[in-house]
Amino acid sequence: MAHRELTSDVSDGKDEWERKERLVQVMSKDPAFDKRGREWMTRTEKYSRGLRMINRMYDLENTLGWNRQDTTVATGLLDESLPISLHVTAFEPVFLLQASPELLDRYAALTATRGIFGCYLQTELGHGSNVASLETTATYIPGTKEFDIHSPTLSSSKWWIGALGKTATHGVVQAKLILPGGEDMGPHLFFVQLRSLETHKLLPGITAGDIGPKAFDGTPANDNGFARFNHVRIPKEHMLSKFAQVTDDGKYVKPPHAKISYGGVGVYVFILPTSDLTSPLFCRRRCCISVHRWLPPLGGSQQETNKQYNTAAVIAIRYATVRRQGTKGHDGLEKQVISYPSLHTRLLPILSRAYVYIGMGRALSRSFQTMAQRLSTGDASLLAELHAVTSGLKVLCTTSSVQDLENARRSMGGHGYGAFSGIGKVYADMVPSVTYEGENFVLDQQAVRAALKAFKNLFGDDGKSRPSSSTLQNLPPSTYYLRLLIDSKEPPVLHDASNNSHPPASSSSSSWNDPETLILLLEWRAALLVHEMAQTVEDPDATIYQRVSKGTTEAFVARRVGEMISGLRANSELKKQDVGVLGRLYLLFLQTTVESALSDLLSFSLLRIQNPSRIGASRDPTRGLRMAIAKNCLALLPEAIGLTDALGFSDWELDSALGVYDGRVYQALWDRAQLEPLNAKEVPDAYEVGHLDSLLFARS
Amino acid sequence: MAHRELTSDVSDGKDEWERKERLVQVMSKDPAFDKRGREWMTRTEKYSRGLRMINRMYDLENTLGWNRQDTTVATGLLDESLPISLHVTAFEPVFLLQASPELLDRYAALTATRGIFGCYLQTELGHGSNVASLETTATYIPGTKEFDIHSPTLSSSKWWIGALGKTATHGVVQAKLILPGGEDMGPHLFFVQLRSLETHKLLPGITAGDIGPKAFDGTPANDNGFARFNHVRIPKEHMLSKFAQVTDDGKYVKPPHAKISYGGVGVYVFILPTSDLTSPLFCRRRCCISVHRWLPPLGGSQQETNKQYNTAAVIAIRYATVRRQGTKGHDGLEKQVISYPSLHTRLLPILSRAYVYIGMGRALSRSFQTMAQRLSTGDASLLAELHAVTSGLKVLCTTSSVQDLENARRSMGGHGYGAFSGIGKVYADMVPSVTYEGENFVLDQQAVRAALKAFKNLFGDDGKSRPSSSTLQNLPPSTYYLRLLIDSKEPPVLHDASNNSHPPASSSSSSWNDPETLILLLEWRAALLVHEMAQTVEDPDATIYQRVSKGTTEAFVARRVGEMISGLRANSELKKQDVGVLGRLYLLFLQTTVESALSDLLSFSLLRIQNPSRIGASRDPTRGLRMAIAKNCLALLPEAIGLTDALGFSDWELDSALGVYDGRVYQALWDRAQLEPLNAKEVPDAYEVGHLDSLLFARS
Repeated sequence: MAHRELTSDVSDGKDEWERKERLVQVMSKDPAFDKRGREWMTRTEKYSRGLRMINRMYDLENTLGWNRQDTTVATGLLDESLPISLHVTAFEPVFLLQASPELLDRYAALTATRGIFGCYLQTELGHGSNVASLETTATYIPGTKEFDIHSPTLSSSKWWIGALGKTATHGVVQAKLILPGGEDMGPHLFFVQLRSLETHKLLPGITAGDIGPKAFDGTPANDNGFARFNHVRIPKEHMLSKFAQVTDDGKYVKPPHAKISYGGVGVYVFILPTSDLTSPLFCRRRCCISVHRWLPPLGGSQQETNKQYNTAAVIAIRYATVRRQGTKGHDGLEKQVISYPSLHTRLLPILSRAYVYIGMGRALSRSFQTMAQRLSTGDASLLAELHAVTSGLKVLCTTSSVQDLENARRSMGGHGYGAFSGIGKVYADMVPSVTYEGENFVLDQQAVRAALKAFKNLFGDDGKSRPSSSTLQNLPPSTYYLRLLIDSKEPPVLHDASNNSHPPASSSSSSWNDPETLILLLEWRAALLVHEMAQTVEDPDATIYQRVSKGTTEAFVARRVGEMISGLRANSELKKQDVGVLGRLYLLFLQTTVESALSDLLSFSLLRIQNPSRIGASRDPTRGLRMAIAKNCLALLPEAIGLTDALGFSDWELDSALGVYDGRVYQALWDRAQLEPLNAKEVPDAYEVGHLDSLLFARS
Repeated sequence: MAHRELTSDVSDGKDEWERKERLVQVMSKDPAFDKRGREWMTRTEKYSRGLRMINRMYDLENTLGWNRQDTTVATGLLDESLPISLHVTAFEPVFLLQASPELLDRYAALTATRGIFGCYLQTELGHGSNVASLETTATYIPGTKEFDIHSPTLSSSKWWIGALGKTATHGVVQAKLILPGGEDMGPHLFFVQLRSLETHKLLPGITAGDIGPKAFDGTPANDNGFARFNHVRIPKEHMLSKFAQVTDDGKYVKPPHAKISYGGVGVYVFILPTSDLTSPLFCRRRCCISVHRWLPPLGGSQQETNKQYNTAAVIAIRYATVRRQGTKGHDGLEKQVISYPSLHTRLLPILSRAYVYIGMGRALSRSFQTMAQRLSTGDASLLAELHAVTSGLKVLCTTSSVQDLENARRSMGGHGYGAFSGIGKVYADMVPSVTYEGENFVLDQQAVRAALKAFKNLFGDDGKSRPSSSTLQNLPPSTYYLRLLIDSKEPPVLHDASNNSHPPASSSSSSWNDPETLILLLEWRAALLVHEMAQTVEDPDATIYQRVSKGTTEAFVARRVGEMISGLRANSELKKQDVGVLGRLYLLFLQTTVESALSDLLSFSLLRIQNPSRIGASRDPTRGLRMAIAKNCLALLPEAIGLTDALGFSDWELDSALGVYDGRVYQALWDRAQLEPLNAKEVPDAYEVGHLDSLLFARS
C-alpha cells in the first residue's frame, strides 16, 4: 500500500512528520546519540551517556535554533529514561506553581536554564501510593523561622526519586508539616537544596545516592535515588506556600478549597499534585501513560507521541516477513514465517492496537484540552469524567502494550531472546508503567467506583429509579453504555455461523465483521457488568474489580474506535485503499477485543448457545468469531509491511537487528555480535587467570 | 502451620532435604558462590565468575567427597545458566552414545574429566526448529578419507550454541552429509575440535565467538556462541558413526530403524537427539523443563528439582506480609498488603501452582522411569503417550510459570521493579523456556495432533464408531477424558449459588469446592474441544490449537491433582493439619484453572445460565466460582507464610532483599543500594568530565 499519506496521518500531519524527519536526520548522525555498544556499558557508563545526551540536545537547541516543540520531540526520540525528564515534568511545574513570589524571584530563572537541577521527593522506602502515611517530617521552629526536615526512621528514607541519586541539586520534598505544638498537618511541599552548587557534594545532614539497578536492567540512565535527612534546616520561605502557609509564630493558614481553580489551567493542573488520584495532574499523567502521548504540561501546545511501544509490531512483523522456516512453497523457498496463522494471528492484533492507541491518543488529547479550557474558566465539570476514563485507560493500555511487547518478542523465537532484537530493552523500560502513577489494581477500583457512581445517579441506590430522557441524552462518553439498561431493546444476539445443523440467517455470519454490532456487544457487556456489580458491591468476588474496569473501559474504547472508522471516510487526506485497510485493522481490534471478552459475553447470554441442553450435539458458538478473526488477519497480511512502514520508524530509532528496514537481519546480527566485548580477545581472561583450569588440570 | 514434615515432603523426602541443607551450608559460605554485587558485573565478569563457580564446585566434589547426586544438586543450586550444563547434558551423552569405539577410546575419559570441554552445534542463524533445512555441509573426500565441514552462507553460521562462544574445545556439529557424488543425505553428527588444547586459540578455518547479550541480561554467564567453518577437514572417524556410516570409498551405510531400541535406555534416549520432536530425548527435556525437574539423562538415578520458578511465590508472599500500606487496623498499624483481596487472590494461586508442579514433577518422573524401563526391554508403547503429555505440559507449565514470575514481581509494586527483588533475574533466565526445546506454538500442534489421533482411534475417521469397553478401560492418562464422549451421563451442571431469585440446591454452592466436580468439568471441556476440533480440523480457526492443547493438558493435570489430593490422605508422613492445608491449596489450583477455562465451559454449556432469554434479569453465573476462590484464598491466608517457608529456601538461594527470612526488607534494600558503583564516588565522574556542564554553563 502507499503509505506516505498514512505516515503523515499517524504523525499528526505532514508538518509534524517533517519535523520528526528533520530531527532524526540530525540526531541519528550525532555521536552523542550513537546507540552502538550501549548494551554492554556499565550502569555508570549508561548514566554518563545519558547526561551527555541531555547536554548535547540543549547544545543543538541553541545552535540549530530549535523551538520548544522541536526540543519536546527530540527528547522523545531519545529512547532512554533520563534524569532531565524529572526536572522538566515534575520538579519545575510543581515549583513554579506553588512557590512563593520570593522563591520564584530567586530560582525560577535558574530552573529554566537548569542552573539548578531539580527532583521531586515523594515516595519513601515504606510508602508509595498512600501519601497520607509518609513519615518524613518538616517541623516548624519559630525561634529561627526555619523548618527542620527529618527522616525519623529507616522506612522514611525517600526512595525511587528520579534524578536524586547523583544529579539533582535541589528538590521538592513531601513531608508532614508539624506545628510547634506538635500538631501534624499532613503532607506539604518544601524546597530543599541537596547538593552544593560549587562542588556538587551533598549538603550537611543529607545522605543520598542511587538505589541500584532496576529489574531487567530497565531505565539504567536514570539515577533513581534515596535520601535521608538528619535535622536539615531550611528557611521558612522554602515551604511551597502559595496555597498553604505557616505564620512566623507557627500558625497554619489553611489553603483555599483545594479543588477550585486559581485562574489558570496550569495552576489547576498542578495543585494537589501527588496525594490525590483524582487530581488533574494525575489525570494528565495517566493520559500520557495510557495512550503513549506526552501532553502539554502547562497549557502549552507541545506534545509528542511516545512511539516506543509500537516498535514491537514493527520489529516482529518485519522479522517474520524475512524469516523463512518449514514447508517449502512453490518458489522452492521455505515459507515466510508470517504466513503461518499461529504467527500472523498473534502479530496483526498487536499492530491493530498500535494504530488504535495512536487514534485514542489524539482523541484523549482533544478531551484533555477541552477540560483544560473549561477549567481555566472555573468549570470543573469534565474533571470527573476524565478521571474515570483515564483510570481505566491507563490500566488497559499499559497492561496490553507491555504484553504486546513481550508477545512480539516471543514471536521471534530464539533470536527474539537476543538483546539485539531491541524489544527486550523497550519492555524493560516500559514495564513499570503498570505499577507506577497509580498501581493498576488501585486504578481498577477508581474506574469501578466512577462507574457505580454513574449507575446510582441514574437508577438510584435501590437500582429502581428511571432517569429522564434528557439525562440519558447527556450521558458522558465514559458511561454512555448505561443507556442500554433502560432501552427496551434486547442486546444483539449472534448465532454461530459455522453450525451446519442450524444454518444461521445470512446476516449472522457477517455480523462478526460489523463494527457496530461488536461495539454494541461490548457496551452491553459493560452495562450488565456494572448492573451486576451494583447488586454485589458489599460482597465482591475475587476478580470483579478487574472485570468491571476492563469491561467499561473497553466499551469506551470500542465506541471511540467506531468514531475512528466513521472518521476514516471523512478523511480526505487518506487514499481510498488506505481507508479500507485501516478500516479492516480497526475491525480486527474490535474482533479481538470481543474475543477476549467471551466469558463475560457468554455469562450474560450476549452470545447465545444453540441447543444448550444437548451437550455434545451443540457446536462451539465462538467459532464464528474466531473464524472471522482468522480471515481478517489473512486479508490484512499483504498490508502488514506497509502498515508497519507507515509508522515511520528509522533504523536508528528502532535500534534492532531484527527490524532493519533492508531486511538483512542475519548480517545485522552478525555485525553486532562482533562488537561483544567477550570477543575482543580470542582467548578470554578467564582462561588466562586459570578459571578454565579444570581443563588444564585434567590434561596434566 | 508446622512445616518441617512438609519441607521434607516437597524435598523428595528427609534424605534429600538434608543433602540440600548440607550443600547449602557449604556453598553459601564459599566466596566463589557469593552473589553480592553480581548485579553490576559486566558480561565478561559474569562469564569469568561462572567458570570460577564450575571450577570450585569440582574442587569441592573432590575435597569433600561428593557423590554424583550431591554434584547434581549442587549444580542446581547455582542460580546461573553455566557453560558446563551444555557439556554435561548435550555434548557428553550424544558423544558417548553415537561415537565409534575408536573415538570413545581416545576421548571418553577426557570428556568425563572435562579434559575436553564440549558443545553441541545445531541451530544456525537461518534455522532453528527445522533441522532438515540446516545448511552446514560435511562433504566426504574419499582421497584423504576426510570430511570437509563448511558453512556455505552467512545464514548457515551456527548460532546460539551454549558454551561455544569462548569455552568449548570440541563440539558435535550437525551438518548435511554430502556424498562424493553430491548426494545430500540430510543432517548427521560430526565431532570437531574447535580450539587448541595448548593455547585455547581457534583452529584454522574456524571463526567463532559469543553472540552477544540476551534480552533482559538473561543467562549472562553462558557464552552462547556462533561459528563459521571454512572448509575444515576432519578425519572420517570423526563422524559419529554408531548408527550411520560412510565407507572409505564414500558409500552410505544406512542406520537400522531409527526408533528401535538398541539394548539400553541410554541408547534409546539419545538416538535422533535433535531432529524429531517425538524422540525420547525431546520427551525427557520437555519433562525437565515443564515440571522444573532435572531427570536422569543416562538411566542414572540423579535428579533434582529446579526450584527457581518457586522463588516468585516465596519472595512476593513474604514481602506482602511485611509491607503495610493504606487503611489502619485495630493495632494502629496499616494493614499488611497481603490482606487486600487484590493481592492475595493474585499470590495464593501462584503458590498453588508451585506446589502442584512439584507434585507433577514427581509423577512425571515416575512415568519417565517406567517408560525408560520398558524401552530397555524393547517396548516403546509408552513413548507416544509421554510425547503427547510432555508436549502439552511443556507449553502449559512454562507459560504459566513465567507469567507467575512476572505477576509476582508486579505484585510488589515499585520495589518489585528494583533488581534487588530478585525475581527479575529469574524471569530473565527462565523466559526462553517458552521458545526453546520446541517453541510453544509448535508444541501445541503436537499435543493437538496426539489428541486427534486418539479421538480417531476411538471413534473412527467419521467420528461414528463406538469403541469397545475394554478399549475404554485402557485409555491412557493423556486421553482419559475421551471416555466421557461415550458415557451416557450428562456433564455436571453447576448453577450459580448467588442467584437469589432462583435458589440453587444446597449441593450446588458447595460443588465449587468439590475437586471431583472441578476435574470432571475440565475433562468434559477437553472432550468437547477435541470433538469440536475433529469436525473442523480442515478449516481451523485462529486459536483452536492453543485452546485444545491447553484444554486437554489441563484435564490431564487436573486428574493428577485429584490423585495428589487422594494421596494426601494416605501420606502418613504429613501432619493432619498439613493435609488439610495442602488439600485447600490443590483445590485452589483446580478452582483457578476452571476460572481460566470459563469461556470454554460456557461455550459448551457446561456452566448453565439461568433465564438465558431474559437479559438483565439473569445474574452472573460465574460469580459462585469466583466467590469460592475468594473464600478459599481467605482461608489459606494464615497458612501462606508456612507454605512458603516449607519450600525450604535459604536467603542465599533466594538472593532477594524483599524475600529475606527475617522480614527486614527495608534494611536489606538499603544495604544493597550502598553497594551500587554509582555511589562509590559522591560526585560522579560524569560531573567531573563536564557532562553536567549545562549546569555550570548556566551558572557562569
